[in-house]
Amino acid sequence: EIVAAIEALLDVSPKPLSGRRIIVTSGPTHEPIDPVRYIANRSSGKQGHAIAAALARLGADVRLVSGPVGIADPAGVKTIHVERAQEMRDAVEQLLPADAAVFVAAVADWRSENSAGEKIKKVAGEGPPVLRMVENPDILAGVGHHSQRPGLVIGFAAETQDLLRNAEAKLRKKGADFIVANDVSHESGIGPSGVMGGDRNRVRIVSKAGVEEWPEMSKDEVAARLAALIAERLKTTVV
Amino acid sequence: EIVAAIEALLDVSPKPLSGRRIIVTSGPTHEPIDPVRYIANRSSGKQGHAIAAALARLGADVRLVSGPVGIADPAGVKTIHVERAQEMRDAVEQLLPADAAVFVAAVADWRSENSAGEKIKKVAGEGPPVLRMVENPDILAGVGHHSQRPGLVIGFAAETQDLLRNAEAKLRKKGADFIVANDVSHESGIGPSGVMGGDRNRVRIVSKAGVEEWPEMSKDEVAARLAALIAERLKTTVV
Repeated sequence: EIVAAIEALLDVSPKPLSGRRIIVTSGPTHEPIDPVRYIANRSSGKQGHAIAAALARLGADVRLVSGPVGIADPAGVKTIHVERAQEMRDAVEQLLPADAAVFVAAVADWRSENSAGEKIKKVAGEGPPVLRMVENPDILAGVGHHSQRPGLVIGFAAETQDLLRNAEAKLRKKGADFIVANDVSHESGIGPSGVMGGDRNRVRIVSKAGVEEWPEMSKDEVAARLAALIAERLKTTVV
Repeated sequence: EIVAAIEALLDVSPKPLSGRRIIVTSGPTHEPIDPVRYIANRSSGKQGHAIAAALARLGADVRLVSGPVGIADPAGVKTIHVERAQEMRDAVEQLLPADAAVFVAAVADWRSENSAGEKIKKVAGEGPPVLRMVENPDILAGVGHHSQRPGLVIGFAAETQDLLRNAEAKLRKKGADFIVANDVSHESGIGPSGVMGGDRNRVRIVSKAGVEEWPEMSKDEVAARLAALIAERLKTTVV
């Protein structure tokens, strides 16, 4: 912490993202079923928070919209806390216009049709309830096709099958410049040693230009490399 | 930490729960829908962990079975970490026999019928999925009617309506000696300032003898008072 502060003071290197506003989303969303139950996606927020911190280190004015996570707000980043996908969408759209947006959050695709005001009770003789789902707003596609679309829009895709085919379809449909695809299938796994919850990640960067495969590295390294890629791309666009 | 350690060394007062094995459950359970989604109950684990710690301070050999929480294992308590209700049930039953069991965990009543091995995809033209639920094991009732039933069985009930009527029904059905009923309705609420996630609690102790209403107090105070009640009850039963 102190070392980082001194480094920041001594740092006279040019900041490639100075004056750039970048929106980052991170963490899961929680969709209420009733006052005590909810549906959630597995996401520690580690990758999204690391990307927000890496962009801030390059001088960007970062606004992080985070779902419920157990980790601290990154230093130097303005963090907005939300719970549901609809809240995340509203928070992101209020932050437009921006130079870039990076959608790392694992947003729940659906929410419960009726988020009952009262706790759903077990009723003797009746079976468990059937939960009807309705689709949540697609935050990435909403921003990718927005009238105030940022110059650079990056989505994340967690896939367990047909990783690349799904990522390419997503790129077109969502109006994104890049999809960062991470493989959360059985090999890479979920939990402390896996992609979700763990500290390492193996990603592919899918764009119109093709697919770039990055080796497995720490989430901080993925964040630093992605921040450098964003800085490179924003340099070549008109401010 | 150091003060507590010195106090423990200097403490020559009799330990009323020495030699007693007590099982405590705490936190939520997470029930997978697919590799990236799950259903959860709101529970910080604060109340359950505080009860485990309070019982340990009275000399009990406490085994805490905890769902996924963001708080540390209590000092002096053997903690077993689980995720799903079925895992919690198995862990609890393997800890029998015991002198008492306190079921504080907010166990999910249902789990998804098919916890799909692959991530459920959005399919164009098809609506969101319907999630069919199946009932989870009732851990409290299972232990309340177990051949190795502990001498003292205490359940917790989070209710949003008909608080007392539901708690009394639960007492009979579950084979419990006490139900600690907390009101999670709108007045008391959910979130940092409410019962769930907050640091304070207002409970009623429901037993065959009737209902005892405790004033609102911190979760640590509820824990200390409940530990004292347990010590009192175990004193009057044959070891």
